[in-house]
Amino acid sequence: MTGEKRRSYDPVALRARILDVAAAAFQSRGYNSTSTHDIMRDAAVTGGALHHHFPTKKSLGLAVIRERVAPAVEETWIEPVRQARTALDGILRAFDDIVLLIDERGEVLGCPLNNLAIELSLADPEFKEAVVQIFGRWQEAIAGKLRGEKADAAPISAPDELATFVVASYSGAIAMAKAQQNSDPLRICARQLASVLRPIRKERGPSRTPRRMS
Amino acid sequence: MTGEKRRSYDPVALRARILDVAAAAFQSRGYNSTSTHDIMRDAAVTGGALHHHFPTKKSLGLAVIRERVAPAVEETWIEPVRQARTALDGILRAFDDIVLLIDERGEVLGCPLNNLAIELSLADPEFKEAVVQIFGRWQEAIAGKLRGEKADAAPISAPDELATFVVASYSGAIAMAKAQQNSDPLRICARQLASVLRPIRKERGPSRTPRRMS
Repeated sequence: MTGEKRRSYDPVALRARILDVAAAAFQSRGYNSTSTHDIMRDAAVTGGALHHHFPTKKSLGLAVIRERVAPAVEETWIEPVRQARTALDGILRAFDDIVLLIDERGEVLGCPLNNLAIELSLADPEFKEAVVQIFGRWQEAIAGKLRGEKADAAPISAPDELATFVVASYSGAIAMAKAQQNSDPLRICARQLASVLRPIRKERGPSRTPRRMS
Repeated sequence: MTGEKRRSYDPVALRARILDVAAAAFQSRGYNSTSTHDIMRDAAVTGGALHHHFPTKKSLGLAVIRERVAPAVEETWIEPVRQARTALDGILRAFDDIVLLIDERGEVLGCPLNNLAIELSLADPEFKEAVVQIFGRWQEAIAGKLRGEKADAAPISAPDELATFVVASYSGAIAMAKAQQNSDPLRICARQLASVLRPIRKERGPSRTPRRMS
């Protein structure tokens, strides 16, 4: 009976459920503090099913980074920045949404990318590489947007460096938010980044839209 | 014989050695990934001696935060900022020294405070409180220095918020440095912070900075 029950599972859905459970556990408790038994229990899967999809805990960790953490950064940061009128608008939108989420939830789990970067990058080169790629795409999305604005603005810091600064400020702010378990550091850093980035596009008066001119 | 050998240990030195070993292990591998057996082995102490000084792993964790992490933040950040001519000089000094250390060592262990904040603040209120106190002293040292400069400068961002921004930028930069295992994000963020903070104290020079006009 249980065999029939298992066979009736959609393997794609099962794999997705394991990834969801593992991603949530790695974000809130960390990779090393989560056992494969925790994941089997929380996802309600057998050891055999877990092993079939992810032969090792490391293969699960890498899949979480590539298939859950990367899309989360895409959704919370890269898309808002791409779709916004300006880099600053997109950055503030990302901060605002995360502040709202934290305030609703009442606890700070931290940035899934940042958490795993700190826990795993020194320990394992494959984890490091997977994490570095996501940081790279995140920074490039912001830098690309800033580059589009630059043509019409006063000389600013190199867009690549400014993008690194934005990602670092956010990553540190969410680490501090996690430390104190409230969103205040994110609100503060959003205001500070606004004052750093605002002159770039208001330089020549409010009527011009730098992005279209470039 | 081993009993005599143990008795000949200076208990203060033994306790200090346990703390040194635990602090190093927590910084490089994390609190949860370090077992008390790892600490006994690396510090060459018996279980009895470890238990005598630190009855629980948590008591050891709290002692590491209070007696090793707090002094490390004091030494690398708070003192340089207090002793510098300006907040910016102190901040750049702190960044420079850490970049040098990383470049000499060839690997990035990460900020001990940040690492433990991310690993432990959500999980345990006592760890959280210990970590929050250190972040508070760090921010207050920078804010205090900025406040001292403010009298002579035009209105700037609230010193408290600017201090939070500095700490966040650093914390994120060292997380990114740990992610990619090199010091580049720290160098970049130091340059960016310099461009944010420099106008504050050069305010009365001939050129107005765009940031003030917004």
